[in-house]
Amino acid sequence: MRDIGTVETRYLDLPGPLPLDCGRVLPRVTVAYETYGTLNAARDNVILVCHALSGDAHAAGVAAASPEEGTREGYPSGLGWWDGMIGPGKAFDTDRWFVVSTNLLGGCRGTTGPSSTDPETGRPYGSRFPVLTVADMVRCERAFLDALGIDRVAAVAGGSLGGMQALEWAMAYPDRVDAIVVIASTHALQPQGVAWNAIARESIMRDPGWQGGDYYGTGRTPDAGMGVARMIGHITYLSAPGLAEKFGRRLQNDGGIRYTFTEPEFAIESYLDHQAAQFVKRFDANTYLVLSRALTYFSVKDLESIKTRTLLIAFSSDWLYPPAGSEEMANNIEGSEYHLIESPYGHDCFLLEEARQTPIVKQFLEG
Amino acid sequence: MRDIGTVETRYLDLPGPLPLDCGRVLPRVTVAYETYGTLNAARDNVILVCHALSGDAHAAGVAAASPEEGTREGYPSGLGWWDGMIGPGKAFDTDRWFVVSTNLLGGCRGTTGPSSTDPETGRPYGSRFPVLTVADMVRCERAFLDALGIDRVAAVAGGSLGGMQALEWAMAYPDRVDAIVVIASTHALQPQGVAWNAIARESIMRDPGWQGGDYYGTGRTPDAGMGVARMIGHITYLSAPGLAEKFGRRLQNDGGIRYTFTEPEFAIESYLDHQAAQFVKRFDANTYLVLSRALTYFSVKDLESIKTRTLLIAFSSDWLYPPAGSEEMANNIEGSEYHLIESPYGHDCFLLEEARQTPIVKQFLEG
Repeated sequence: MRDIGTVETRYLDLPGPLPLDCGRVLPRVTVAYETYGTLNAARDNVILVCHALSGDAHAAGVAAASPEEGTREGYPSGLGWWDGMIGPGKAFDTDRWFVVSTNLLGGCRGTTGPSSTDPETGRPYGSRFPVLTVADMVRCERAFLDALGIDRVAAVAGGSLGGMQALEWAMAYPDRVDAIVVIASTHALQPQGVAWNAIARESIMRDPGWQGGDYYGTGRTPDAGMGVARMIGHITYLSAPGLAEKFGRRLQNDGGIRYTFTEPEFAIESYLDHQAAQFVKRFDANTYLVLSRALTYFSVKDLESIKTRTLLIAFSSDWLYPPAGSEEMANNIEGSEYHLIESPYGHDCFLLEEARQTPIVKQFLEG
Repeated sequence: MRDIGTVETRYLDLPGPLPLDCGRVLPRVTVAYETYGTLNAARDNVILVCHALSGDAHAAGVAAASPEEGTREGYPSGLGWWDGMIGPGKAFDTDRWFVVSTNLLGGCRGTTGPSSTDPETGRPYGSRFPVLTVADMVRCERAFLDALGIDRVAAVAGGSLGGMQALEWAMAYPDRVDAIVVIASTHALQPQGVAWNAIARESIMRDPGWQGGDYYGTGRTPDAGMGVARMIGHITYLSAPGLAEKFGRRLQNDGGIRYTFTEPEFAIESYLDHQAAQFVKRFDANTYLVLSRALTYFSVKDLESIKTRTLLIAFSSDWLYPPAGSEEMANNIEGSEYHLIESPYGHDCFLLEEARQTPIVKQFLEG
């Protein structure tokens, strides 16, 4: 199969200020983005893909190593987070579609977020960065596409928080979007998911390194707390049977237990340590707080009002964004198409089950 | 219904040192305990009840306020953790049985644990306290009963970690126990449960207040990290439908969201904060680490070897100690009696579903 090859992330400054739901305005916004495929003359082959909590603009292809990033911490392969879905002949077929991916507003991978410089003070925003909503992110995406000269998108697609953005596009800009692809997502996070997000945020904010959000330049960061947040995330993204299959109760040390709790005894403990250590190298804690809060707020009260063509995909073992949420959307969004994929890998299925999503997405986009 | 009334916790020093699985020996061990009912002349009406991770010796009745404890932080009502199950006419009927409850070895409510004085140094053990197993706890319970002059128990009963102790009694001292009652428990924690416990421990140990375990007397304690550990615990003890029913997505503030992540926005966030704040007042972080590690280690390889009369109860919505574990025990422990109770309250059912457990336990104990 042909590949996208090396991709460079680009940056665009929005031409004007961005108003937010909270009443504040961000005076200057930069958006980090990548594109795959070719924009046609009619400018009507655009698909916007939206990332989830821990993603970034690098959705597909191999990242060009930048001087600052070197081998790109946390992405050893350099492949984008949805590389299996975006490319020539893939679900989002770049032979036909011009696929655009941005880093979310509030992000830490090139788009304006809490670690960006506040033009009012000349210092990083930190605690002064506004609390965002999914609607704010989508408003930013639309302003970005406007700046690229793209009036209308053939589809907005994403998993998890990315799927929420797709839903929000259909609510906020129904005349600008032809179809939405909402994968492993929900119109309103279930209370248990609200709780997991709250606990992850608490873990970050209770780390003294957080310093009320103003840790930039202090030499201290809330890595310890964000590591725990990432561990919580990881377990909620996987499933109990998936963990049983992958790790079981396998010990880390062949010689048996060593009577310690400061060192990992079980393989799964070592795996969690490793995941946490990798994540804190590439992610900003305040961005975690902002995005986690936004996805918790998200709530579509009026699903019936969505008239955009809608594809819904859920996974049987996803207990963080359970199929029941997608079913409720399917029952209330007229003409929507819903697929439940049986798979044991939990919420992470949207990143892993490429082969099974591909024909569904392809057929929907051709329809 | 008659009640047990006011109960005072008592303390007993074991007559000799206690050897441990890790190879170390605890030279002096004190056991905090309570008893309910009357020991008969034959001394054959004893039931030992064993608490779970966050419990203590105060299983039933109203705690006598001690000078140090005042109104007993964390137990506003003063009622024991299994008061609905222990008492005259209740599941563990104190008109017939002499019920004994101890604080576990490694505990922080009167039995020797990490916060106790190390006789070698004259200072609290802290990081010098040994890493324990469930077998160590049971060895301590047996030494304690020996010291009381009780050779044999009619039953050992408990939920969760308490159920593991009951299983261990049947493995280690089959000639000393007539029956075991194993509720919402398992012969080996599932990998997802191993992970949740690891994350909770990480949260405590990553709190700088933990100081490698030697925080006693420093004026700093890892309350922040243990609060997060407790929040994680709470969500794993409940069920997703239970949370949806109790909290839904109800906002904390009638006026809508306030665009904050430092303050609770959803009622469930406020509830978690409250639970964490209450817990850290009454619990020691090192005890949490020791007990959590012990229950993670616990693994019965040879269920078929258990010949003790066994009652198993599981709850349909308990995803931390799922019914599958109890079913596996039922299939491998000859003659065991297994009941699955349909209830939406998750792992906490063993503390809440008193009315439905009572006839099952009563009938089993009479058999």
